[in-house]
Amino acid sequence: MSKVFLTRRERFNAAHRMFHPDWSDEKNLEVYGKCSNPNWHGHNYVLFVTVKGHVDPEMGYVVNLKKVSKIINKYIIEKLDHKNINLEVDFMKGRVPSAENLAIGIWEQLNPHIHKIGVELHCIKIEETENNYVEYFGE
Amino acid sequence: MSKVFLTRRERFNAAHRMFHPDWSDEKNLEVYGKCSNPNWHGHNYVLFVTVKGHVDPEMGYVVNLKKVSKIINKYIIEKLDHKNINLEVDFMKGRVPSAENLAIGIWEQLNPHIHKIGVELHCIKIEETENNYVEYFGE
Amino acid sequence: MSKVFLTRRERFNAAHRMFHPDWSDEKNLEVYGKCSNPNWHGHNYVLFVTVKGHVDPEMGYVVNLKKVSKIINKYIIEKLDHKNINLEVDFMKGRVPSAENLAIGIWEQLNPHIHKIGVELHCIKIEETENNYVEYFGE
Amino acid sequence: MSKVFLTRRERFNAAHRMFHPDWSDEKNLEVYGKCSNPNWHGHNYVLFVTVKGHVDPEMGYVVNLKKVSKIINKYIIEKLDHKNINLEVDFMKGRVPSAENLAIGIWEQLNPHIHKIGVELHCIKIEETENNYVEYFGE
Amino acid sequence: MSKVFLTRRERFNAAHRMFHPDWSDEKNLEVYGKCSNPNWHGHNYVLFVTVKGHVDPEMGYVVNLKKVSKIINKYIIEKLDHKNINLEVDFMKGRVPSAENLAIGIWEQLNPHIHKIGVELHCIKIEETENNYVEYFGE
Amino acid sequence: MSKVFLTRRERFNAAHRMFHPDWSDEKNLEVYGKCSNPNWHGHNYVLFVTVKGHVDPEMGYVVNLKKVSKIINKYIIEKLDHKNINLEVDFMKGRVPSAENLAIGIWEQLNPHIHKIGVELHCIKIEETENNYVEYFGE
Repeated sequence: MSKVFLTRRERFNAAHRMFHPDWSDEKNLEVYGKCSNPNWHGHNYVLFVTVKGHVDPEMGYVVNLKKVSKIINKYIIEKLDHKNINLEVDFMKGRVPSAENLAIGIWEQLNPHIHKIGVELHCIKIEETENNYVEYFGE
Repeated sequence: MSKVFLTRRERFNAAHRMFHPDWSDEKNLEVYGKCSNPNWHGHNYVLFVTVKGHVDPEMGYVVNLKKVSKIINKYIIEKLDHKNINLEVDFMKGRVPSAENLAIGIWEQLNPHIHKIGVELHCIKIEETENNYVEYFGE
Repeated sequence: MSKVFLTRRERFNAAHRMFHPDWSDEKNLEVYGKCSNPNWHGHNYVLFVTVKGHVDPEMGYVVNLKKVSKIINKYIIEKLDHKNINLEVDFMKGRVPSAENLAIGIWEQLNPHIHKIGVELHCIKIEETENNYVEYFGE
Repeated sequence: MSKVFLTRRERFNAAHRMFHPDWSDEKNLEVYGKCSNPNWHGHNYVLFVTVKGHVDPEMGYVVNLKKVSKIINKYIIEKLDHKNINLEVDFMKGRVPSAENLAIGIWEQLNPHIHKIGVELHCIKIEETENNYVEYFGE
Repeated sequence: MSKVFLTRRERFNAAHRMFHPDWSDEKNLEVYGKCSNPNWHGHNYVLFVTVKGHVDPEMGYVVNLKKVSKIINKYIIEKLDHKNINLEVDFMKGRVPSAENLAIGIWEQLNPHIHKIGVELHCIKIEETENNYVEYFGE
Repeated sequence: MSKVFLTRRERFNAAHRMFHPDWSDEKNLEVYGKCSNPNWHGHNYVLFVTVKGHVDPEMGYVVNLKKVSKIINKYIIEKLDHKNINLEVDFMKGRVPSAENLAIGIWEQLNPHIHKIGVELHCIKIEETENNYVEYFGE
């Protein structure tokens, strides 16, 4: 049976600021620059979720894409879209809301649910702007 | 002499919320939905500034693009990038920070400076997401 | 009051073939080439609907974008998405399903509904491939 | 000698429907939803073919890109562009025309020809819409 | 009869330098900066040609897009692609190779040929980079 | 500690020609076709630099993206932007300026500097046109 990687793109718009609660305002500013603005800024985040699995010989799919999309929307997009990542997102509590930590947090949220639909989570990719993105493979 | 339209693209990342100060929280929520989240959300805004003018027969330009870019950065991007549009942007004070009002506000800021470099401001276009944008032609 | 143009992007995937019922298969092939394949082909169509109006001084919108999106989805996307344009789309009956005729047909469908929400329909733009698109302004 | 991965993008527009011939219409509809519309729908497919090999120290190329493009066009694009994948594509006969099976079928078609020009086929990527794509690495 | 605007996108890769032959090297450098590098630089130019006309009631097209594409390729792309705009493009002789002048030159080349196929040339748009483009409407 | 891949996109516009100095003009033309035009041509190159590393548990970053961007600009963009790759780029001397060799050359330039900021260089990707790109992973 052939193994195929399937990727779903979803989007969310959110506010955040780079901020470490144990640091002074000066140190936050020094490390994070304008990304630490106390009044927040925001992004149109683009999320790519890649799963891998064997192609079901009958159905022709690795997994029905609608199931993947439903999981991403329920566990990720509804929690992040039009939200403040520092203040309102349960799985980001206690974490600096960098793209890196966001990718790791999203992986942890999605992994058990992706597992349940019979495929393996392979990669979480987050584009924060057109000039930078991060990828996390679960390790 | 030939008239040509010249467009410069710039980007800024900012936080905002749709909010009318004279309305109750309930009415704000009813009208603006999740866009009214009190904890803010944000966007990667894409700004297109179009100027028009006759091509300088010697230089071959309508106007040196670097001048246009410098003006946009000085009067718009520095005021908006990594900022909170509701709280921190002088020319948006007292205005609901919709894409429409942002386009009008940017037009008002840029118009006198674009005029000074010998061309006419033609259009301000703002993309808020990949699925919606507004255009304002100064009228 | 300032006039602003607001554009909403929507997408639909559909099958079609270029085919004139009064012509022989040979003439259809001669005029339309491979686009006339009797077994159909298809596209990821991208639709841009532009409306214009004055910015509501209270709300800050030309019109609530959700209303525009709801109308487009109800009267256009539901009729076209995952459909055969030649066989299944009521407002395209009797029309060669070119991008041009599609734009005109969509204009006719949307115009009365856009009018009812207090703005004017300005332009229907359809991208058929990344290399060609058409625009119709209602005249 | 350095190993480099070289990717060529090509496009084709085709019709298809998700359909398993051994299943009832009801089951097809239940599994595939609107993607199973008996009157077909279609896509602007985007195909990325990645080959890998050592850079020829004289020529400076992994392989002349024109050779790769010629092979893709002869064995894939001519068979798929403006065609019905269910009815007209020899190498897809007997296969549900999912993006997954398409990627596997294209791999099988291209692999011997890519091998003959001295490089190794690495990945077939197919974008069906801007929100989903599949990748197949030959295993 | 309905009037529709039809746009074709084509691309060419070319070298150029901003350079006025009557000016000293110093003045060229002062006005054009690094764009005046004597050893040239280059771009992936993207050209959008928009024509307008009435939709042919039988055929359903404003004009057959292949005719438009053939004209653009014969009179523009073959002259510009993989060429040096300053040295090798007949219709740019004696003109500073700015995007503005390129748009005007392309208009002049295409206009009579577009006229012959029964439609009107409406706009030449040239993207030089993702951050700047020019539009010329023939006046 | 979690390992994350971080990618920065940068752009440069340059002229080049495919040319092997030990070959006759005829052989260069035969091998490289129009890409060997003696008067040069050019591209809007898009460069993606991917680094990998563990997420700093305090800062939340693999590495501060500004440091990566500064290194790329200092050692790569300043040397390539608005330059002639055959004539003016020190690290490309004696190399046919293919995308492949450019990726290898950029890897060699960046690798020691990326190492110094505590992360590992993972991939250099160069897009020469929208239809072709190369990737080099340092081996």
